[in-house]
Amino acid sequence: MDCPIPISEYEHILLAHGGGGRLTDQLIRRLFYAGLSNELLESGHDGAVLPPLSGKVAMTTDSFVVDPIFFPGGDIGHLAVNGTVNDLVCCGAVPRYLSLAFILEEGLPMEELWRVVRSVGETAERVGVKVVTGDTKVVEKGKGDRIFINTTGIGEVLPGIEIAPARCREGDVVLINGSVGDHGIAIMNARKQVLFDTGVKSDTCSLWGMMSRVLEEVPGIHVLRDPTRGGLASALNEIASASGTGITLYEKEIPVSQGVRGASEVLGLDPLYIANEGKILVILPAEEAERALSVMQSFPEGKESRIIGRVTSENRGLVQLETVIGTSRIVKMITGEQLPRIC
Amino acid sequence: MDCPIPISEYEHILLAHGGGGRLTDQLIRRLFYAGLSNELLESGHDGAVLPPLSGKVAMTTDSFVVDPIFFPGGDIGHLAVNGTVNDLVCCGAVPRYLSLAFILEEGLPMEELWRVVRSVGETAERVGVKVVTGDTKVVEKGKGDRIFINTTGIGEVLPGIEIAPARCREGDVVLINGSVGDHGIAIMNARKQVLFDTGVKSDTCSLWGMMSRVLEEVPGIHVLRDPTRGGLASALNEIASASGTGITLYEKEIPVSQGVRGASEVLGLDPLYIANEGKILVILPAEEAERALSVMQSFPEGKESRIIGRVTSENRGLVQLETVIGTSRIVKMITGEQLPRIC
Repeated sequence: MDCPIPISEYEHILLAHGGGGRLTDQLIRRLFYAGLSNELLESGHDGAVLPPLSGKVAMTTDSFVVDPIFFPGGDIGHLAVNGTVNDLVCCGAVPRYLSLAFILEEGLPMEELWRVVRSVGETAERVGVKVVTGDTKVVEKGKGDRIFINTTGIGEVLPGIEIAPARCREGDVVLINGSVGDHGIAIMNARKQVLFDTGVKSDTCSLWGMMSRVLEEVPGIHVLRDPTRGGLASALNEIASASGTGITLYEKEIPVSQGVRGASEVLGLDPLYIANEGKILVILPAEEAERALSVMQSFPEGKESRIIGRVTSENRGLVQLETVIGTSRIVKMITGEQLPRIC
Repeated sequence: MDCPIPISEYEHILLAHGGGGRLTDQLIRRLFYAGLSNELLESGHDGAVLPPLSGKVAMTTDSFVVDPIFFPGGDIGHLAVNGTVNDLVCCGAVPRYLSLAFILEEGLPMEELWRVVRSVGETAERVGVKVVTGDTKVVEKGKGDRIFINTTGIGEVLPGIEIAPARCREGDVVLINGSVGDHGIAIMNARKQVLFDTGVKSDTCSLWGMMSRVLEEVPGIHVLRDPTRGGLASALNEIASASGTGITLYEKEIPVSQGVRGASEVLGLDPLYIANEGKILVILPAEEAERALSVMQSFPEGKESRIIGRVTSENRGLVQLETVIGTSRIVKMITGEQLPRIC
């Protein structure tokens, strides 16, 4: 579908598109409604009025400032939906509703906004969440960077599920659904920071389809966490610190694709710190691991799922790596900024 | 309370404060928790898990890009809380929870972030909403502008209340709780676009205290709307259009302060199009107006409340102004951008 506001009318976003008047109204009705249409969004109200939610409610927010906004494997619209959906999944919740707020830079091509809105709409439809309310602001050229998006999600926590970083226990094992570092390398590639084509695509995807089945089969999961900014290492450090346990990782079990490995070596990066957008860490009692793995492996986004670590009572609050050469070292939380604006 | 991260440690925001690692963690624990503390926020989870909500749920989102971030009468932190709370109020909902997402520009003084976080915390506490989840991104210097904030709110729609723009009916009257244009002129003043001191302060405030009492006394209200960007004229145009009614305004009844009137004349602006951040339009059957007004007038933010118009079956979809000199004219939705980045 072509951009509903043709180039002959408005080729670029103007400050007035964020002014709350006629142009804002046109943007909402012609562009946003066309890309995101559902009956709750179109009430023309200051907010959405939603049917009652059952049980506990999960709420999560994320702003997306990824640069560039289009990259191999996805775009900022995919990230904005999948990222927030995955955070709801990590709370053990059925993703239900999203809000969508844009901060646009004056001069943004209308066509680019349309591509992003369409990708938000398509991704939301695939996952089964509804974009029910939104906001658009425009800042002067040079005071923003093309498109920033905030998505905030609400979901219904599954009955009987209790997932929290503090529930990580000695005797648990750590699973992951596939290779690490793909998103970060795809972004660096798109920025031409890698001087050869790695062929790596972002792993951005919704984890809800797979995890809804896993949670049904294995409701006793203790922790779920998507290792985005800061990568696997930072996510596990947060969990070790919140639960007061030690986490031991097996380096040889952590899947890293050829392309990510090659690019990381050239750039001097550690894949354990590179961002992911379609990975999930599942921490659960060892005896339930096989059941979870068999469900995960039956999904395309989980076919490489495996056990990559265990939870211990040694080195409390720390993450330790057993390396391929048989030594071991402490893996800390990321300190500096490896890759700014990765999501 | 002094900034919990002293100048001797980090005087400015670095890219790494948004990297998801140690500095992000420090910012969250030392600065955000200190300014916003509540038990739901501090779970260290990817999102908040909230107790069940009763009845229908309202959800609303707003990004704030106001320039400057500090201005007479408030700052971006006040706006972010009050603006989202007021949108929930306009859905007839009890404001309950907020998410809070920052997009910071590299180099922002830490002290300024702290002032804003504290003002978010204090405003939220005054209103009785909880900030339960958040996010922080940092963009390179020159790719943002100090601080952008997104707040998304959820609330519980009051039982028996049904408020929507489409419910506006012939025979209704239009009330407002005070003078228009103060916020916009205060911002222009702060930007030194007005070359004399108008003494005008932003009207930013939460409308929940007053409106909770009004909704209790007069549950039959048809429409609530806060006339922010685009001002009174744009808000009423949206309502006229959504409901297919005509709205007639009495110019002599619309309160405009001396300072706003003076500045508007100098700048060639029409106060009907200037943004407000503490005003609400109440549209309800004429016979209920007196009861609503007497409650509104008993609150400081409503002491100037009055009837400023009526809903008719003439000029459907349009807003008409009966001027002080006895003529009448159609008042359209704002077309260009009068005041960019007013909220």
